[in-house]
Amino acid sequence: MTIHRRQFMQAAGAAGALATVPTTVLAADAAKPAGTPKQEANMTTFVLIHGAWHYGALWEDVAKPLRKAGHTVHTPTLAGNGPGDGIDRTVGHSDAVKSAVDYVVENDLKDFVLLGHSYGGTIISRMAEELPDRIRRLIYWNAFVLNDGESIEAVSPPHYKQLMDAIAASGAYGPGAVKLPFPVWREAFMNDADLALAQKTYELTTPHPLRTLTDRVALKSFHELKTPRSYINCTEDIAMPPGDFAWHPRFTARLGLCRLVQMPGGHEACFTNPELLAAKIVEAGRD
Amino acid sequence: MTIHRRQFMQAAGAAGALATVPTTVLAADAAKPAGTPKQEANMTTFVLIHGAWHYGALWEDVAKPLRKAGHTVHTPTLAGNGPGDGIDRTVGHSDAVKSAVDYVVENDLKDFVLLGHSYGGTIISRMAEELPDRIRRLIYWNAFVLNDGESIEAVSPPHYKQLMDAIAASGAYGPGAVKLPFPVWREAFMNDADLALAQKTYELTTPHPLRTLTDRVALKSFHELKTPRSYINCTEDIAMPPGDFAWHPRFTARLGLCRLVQMPGGHEACFTNPELLAAKIVEAGRD
Amino acid sequence: MTIHRRQFMQAAGAAGALATVPTTVLAADAAKPAGTPKQEANMTTFVLIHGAWHYGALWEDVAKPLRKAGHTVHTPTLAGNGPGDGIDRTVGHSDAVKSAVDYVVENDLKDFVLLGHSYGGTIISRMAEELPDRIRRLIYWNAFVLNDGESIEAVSPPHYKQLMDAIAASGAYGPGAVKLPFPVWREAFMNDADLALAQKTYELTTPHPLRTLTDRVALKSFHELKTPRSYINCTEDIAMPPGDFAWHPRFTARLGLCRLVQMPGGHEACFTNPELLAAKIVEAGRD
Repeated sequence: MTIHRRQFMQAAGAAGALATVPTTVLAADAAKPAGTPKQEANMTTFVLIHGAWHYGALWEDVAKPLRKAGHTVHTPTLAGNGPGDGIDRTVGHSDAVKSAVDYVVENDLKDFVLLGHSYGGTIISRMAEELPDRIRRLIYWNAFVLNDGESIEAVSPPHYKQLMDAIAASGAYGPGAVKLPFPVWREAFMNDADLALAQKTYELTTPHPLRTLTDRVALKSFHELKTPRSYINCTEDIAMPPGDFAWHPRFTARLGLCRLVQMPGGHEACFTNPELLAAKIVEAGRD
Repeated sequence: MTIHRRQFMQAAGAAGALATVPTTVLAADAAKPAGTPKQEANMTTFVLIHGAWHYGALWEDVAKPLRKAGHTVHTPTLAGNGPGDGIDRTVGHSDAVKSAVDYVVENDLKDFVLLGHSYGGTIISRMAEELPDRIRRLIYWNAFVLNDGESIEAVSPPHYKQLMDAIAASGAYGPGAVKLPFPVWREAFMNDADLALAQKTYELTTPHPLRTLTDRVALKSFHELKTPRSYINCTEDIAMPPGDFAWHPRFTARLGLCRLVQMPGGHEACFTNPELLAAKIVEAGRD
Repeated sequence: MTIHRRQFMQAAGAAGALATVPTTVLAADAAKPAGTPKQEANMTTFVLIHGAWHYGALWEDVAKPLRKAGHTVHTPTLAGNGPGDGIDRTVGHSDAVKSAVDYVVENDLKDFVLLGHSYGGTIISRMAEELPDRIRRLIYWNAFVLNDGESIEAVSPPHYKQLMDAIAASGAYGPGAVKLPFPVWREAFMNDADLALAQKTYELTTPHPLRTLTDRVALKSFHELKTPRSYINCTEDIAMPPGDFAWHPRFTARLGLCRLVQMPGGHEACFTNPELLAAKIVEAGRD
């Protein structure tokens, strides 16, 4: 709530603390629309950061309609993710963040809309700290919004920790790697899919580096940033279980002034309804 | 909860306290459909009470489809609202109520469905106390439902008070007047709009008398009234932030037996989806 | 929460307690899709258990599209329900359960999807205990999920008890029988209907045996069962009032790993939107 108020006042008010700003400045600033559109013909550059068990190429069905509409779409794969035996799944959260930051710097991306899905939400919060001047807007799509020092594990229901630790200990997916049991994927992640699609996508997804879910993430400046932000909530997403652990309003409330966009669907709408998701990304990402 | 139970039992039961009514009367009453339709050919008279920063003419896109369907629509402007430098924005809540009551009496409106949007909810609760026999049904559309002695300020998150006080103190909008900073309007009120519509409607709306938001409202008989009531909730409305402060179920729960109607959209669906809102008003307002 | 974790781990893991299973078995099991479809051409046998005031024939508009799509649909009437003066409305919860179990055994139904609506949810939990090997999946449609020793009365808001006791005491519907007052039916159950449909269905529904709502239900093994389960939530269902008493997430959370399916509509979508409900039943019931 403290965070909420602070960020709200910043977005609503002026450059500094509201109370210390001359009231004429405040009023002038308050009355002025936020920023002027810098994009030509509403074309946007999107950088989409995947969730756990995913990798860049799995955004394809979402990226296609965005590109067809004229937008530019980048879908980097985070360190520790992706198919193949050669991937080091023992990496931690800071390695994943570094891989995403490096991608942006190497491609010299600027003025882009940065979206994080699920685990990816923890990555974009850190990217916003590292690259504040390059990001036009943040979009969290059923994503974790961490406070300073939290891990994904710490904000997830205890049965996930128990399950992940057991899977990791089994060694079934190699050192440091975990994957959801199929019944959990089918019921809690792909609840809006038929069995065939649940099976196909289960095979497409890959083992995930457990440490990225258990590392505590330092977020020293994120909650002071004034970067505009949106949250896309799929209304049937039960990857975080209904009730106290639900994505929304738990994580939306942590973002302060934040544009809420909702759509029907489960946690993997990128597979079950990619066209609608693409439309909602545009809605969430516009100025 | 006490209020809920009381009103529920009244609507469900008979004219007096359920326990004191002869059981045969109760059963007979219970089995009988509520009232007989008095409206010819389902034509309804609607009185639409606007929210803060709004005024009567801004209902036009909602009123049009209602009138086209044969209904009669009144859209009075409350005291202290509306465009122009000549408006006294130092008025209080009782002035606004009086202006609405006067409108109904002067036009001799009877048997009408009375809708309040947002701030307008606090007006229609008082109108229901003043004009109980003229009102067929109350509709709260993402509206405040106050308890006796509460103000809008008291049931809103603290950052709104801080913001409004600062804006009022700035004097930017004249004595007693406040207006939302654009970023709050764009993100939290017009989250389902594009930037152009957010800007256009920001310019259409006008300064609002702050006292109507801070005055404590006496509601001595409202929660005893048996007037049927509905609540329209726009599912993406984040003008009250998600969580404990959300419109629904917080305010719906205060109305006892109440018909819930939902639609997609943000707080300003009168601008972003007026046709669907009109359809939902009919659904909420029918017997 | 304890229940949630336990059932989640069972569904996610293996036959026994996760901690005691050899990790290689766990991993192998975890990676394998759940079961293989046994149904030819996706044809399913559905057994639909009605709610209070309902009886089997009132499923007709839902059963029709299911049958048209090739499914088999059974709609037994529970003991104590149905039209006619000859029905004994003094029966209790165990009588209703027995009547449903007998129906399944007499018709030798196997490998079926078992759905319970509202009160029917308490019946199917007990049926799952009695007939675990015959049930392919459970679907709760805005239904009560009881814990061991609870009654429907105990998990409903107090005003319902007060109301039901008064109606029963009136004797208006014969020994042991209750029926909702029309205003409650119209506003809280048929909120998505017009008045004519609310009236017509009010006349179709019949008195209900009160004891089935007040009997405490023993559920000794239900929460240990591994039967897959889904929950269909109609998003405008206010038969349980919004807030702490709402169907969802209160009862979904009691089911552990559970597929959530949502649709617009009130508590009686079988009357107000039977085609969509049928489609959602298929979605909830598939493997």
